[in-house]
Amino acid sequence: MEMSRLAGGPEFDFIRAVLQNASTSHPLVRVGPGDDCALVGELALSIDASVENTHFRRAWLSPPEIGWRAVAAALSDLAAVAAEPVGVLVSIVMPPGDRAAYAENAMQGAIEAAEANGAVLLGGDTTAGLMLALDVVAVGRAVPPVLRSGAKAGDEVWVTGRLGGAAAAVSAWLAGGNPAAAARARYARPQPRIREALWLRERLALNALIDLSDGLLGDVAHIASASDCRIIIDSASVPIDAEAGATYTQAVSGGEDYELCFTTSPGQVDQMKAAFEQTFNVALTRVGSVEQGSGVAQRAPDGSVSAVEARGYQHFQDKRP
Amino acid sequence: MEMSRLAGGPEFDFIRAVLQNASTSHPLVRVGPGDDCALVGELALSIDASVENTHFRRAWLSPPEIGWRAVAAALSDLAAVAAEPVGVLVSIVMPPGDRAAYAENAMQGAIEAAEANGAVLLGGDTTAGLMLALDVVAVGRAVPPVLRSGAKAGDEVWVTGRLGGAAAAVSAWLAGGNPAAAARARYARPQPRIREALWLRERLALNALIDLSDGLLGDVAHIASASDCRIIIDSASVPIDAEAGATYTQAVSGGEDYELCFTTSPGQVDQMKAAFEQTFNVALTRVGSVEQGSGVAQRAPDGSVSAVEARGYQHFQDKRP
Repeated sequence: MEMSRLAGGPEFDFIRAVLQNASTSHPLVRVGPGDDCALVGELALSIDASVENTHFRRAWLSPPEIGWRAVAAALSDLAAVAAEPVGVLVSIVMPPGDRAAYAENAMQGAIEAAEANGAVLLGGDTTAGLMLALDVVAVGRAVPPVLRSGAKAGDEVWVTGRLGGAAAAVSAWLAGGNPAAAARARYARPQPRIREALWLRERLALNALIDLSDGLLGDVAHIASASDCRIIIDSASVPIDAEAGATYTQAVSGGEDYELCFTTSPGQVDQMKAAFEQTFNVALTRVGSVEQGSGVAQRAPDGSVSAVEARGYQHFQDKRP
Repeated sequence: MEMSRLAGGPEFDFIRAVLQNASTSHPLVRVGPGDDCALVGELALSIDASVENTHFRRAWLSPPEIGWRAVAAALSDLAAVAAEPVGVLVSIVMPPGDRAAYAENAMQGAIEAAEANGAVLLGGDTTAGLMLALDVVAVGRAVPPVLRSGAKAGDEVWVTGRLGGAAAAVSAWLAGGNPAAAARARYARPQPRIREALWLRERLALNALIDLSDGLLGDVAHIASASDCRIIIDSASVPIDAEAGATYTQAVSGGEDYELCFTTSPGQVDQMKAAFEQTFNVALTRVGSVEQGSGVAQRAPDGSVSAVEARGYQHFQDKRP
């Protein structure tokens, strides 16, 4: 049983406090709490909550989009360990009013997202409650998994796609406007990078892998902490989602883009970057490097390096637009 | 992939509508939606929601009891297929206010219930929200599982323990009073019948098995529907939880006692009933029989038989005290 370490931040403090008192060792459990998935036997398991007014507002998304987004976010945890999807369990809390119809439409979107990624519906639970909330369990097959804990000094740090689009959409809504179509699509219908992760795992020695759910700086902090190393992000190289109108801050701190970030030994990615980008129509960008030490830092275009303060990802209700 | 059938009721209508449009077939999936657990490879998986004001009120339970109850209910789904617990994933939505301390105390109770049943903490998610809600995923090893679908005409129907205690506690609270200590304990600290299920599976040919979460009449309706048979409950033989002050109606319709109900061929249980009761200090009671046909009926002490109308289990917010 490997217990990966988590970076700082109040949410992670809570999890650490809970874990201190919990037994996590069992012969079937290869990886317990702290990575993107638990690994039990040959299966990868993760649970991911999507709660009204915390992860989304009903005014922003259609019911099928709410379901799609909840399942895509959960399946992204399988991509984050390079596991192949098997199925999902979906627990839905339905608010009063147009309860059943709304929930049925949300479930339709959930099922579409599952099937688009090769996952079947395994089961679920339905409950009445004050607000709309979905918990999605992603179940995958992970042989062998790629964890957060394998980054090595000297590794390159790469990301898929362009970053900040989902955060740009949320900013537009919070400011009372409407997001650009590209930004809205990134938020409303994220695509978990399942096939991309499996493709990369086949062709590369992936040392560490994570999905970008807490924002680039927050997620590389998890890799740095779990791998006992320091990660430097080159700010000039971060692939900002310009089509979505994202800013640099949204690209490095905005969560929920569900792109991948991985580390690998130098020179490997260059040999397959073109093939990857042609196959998936998704960019691969080197954004930094792994060093000895701890924590995360940004290197500015002038070469100056500044440490990034550890903090957990804040959902939008805690933010100012 | 076996798709068990569900009995009638609005909640199950919703699930049926969703399942009509969902793909549920995958080479690793031995049992999909509709039984107490999905079976994926060697693992049994189930998700179970515990939502404030639907499953419990905060005034009724301490935070550790809320966590215990949520995990015990989820683990009961493992007992219901005679699976051995491996671990749990716990997603917790925390309401505003005393959020972190309250949630940490609830998680302590959750972890206690897991450890008391041989399950470790595998992971989870924490989210801010309007109300306190826990989703617990139970993960177990089920080789071989016992499903709802194997009941045969001629089988005897048995239950563990005494029924109606949890419903008696809820009735007392809803009437503005306080429940008897025994009733409160049944509701606040239920004991999933994990060891009992494994013990029975080793010694008996269990044809069908379920846990009593929807109430005896509702749960045997699931067995009848999945097994394509008719179940007759002998009303005089139902073991009412007298210590908890339960009524007959609470014993047959009150949910959340988390006792087991199983069917087996005649005469088998008589040979081991005394050993079971001595080992676990839990009663084993024959409550009925399986016939050809469909649906559920009650046989009164005078011998008259009346069919039971199909309906889903209603949580307390839909009930009149």
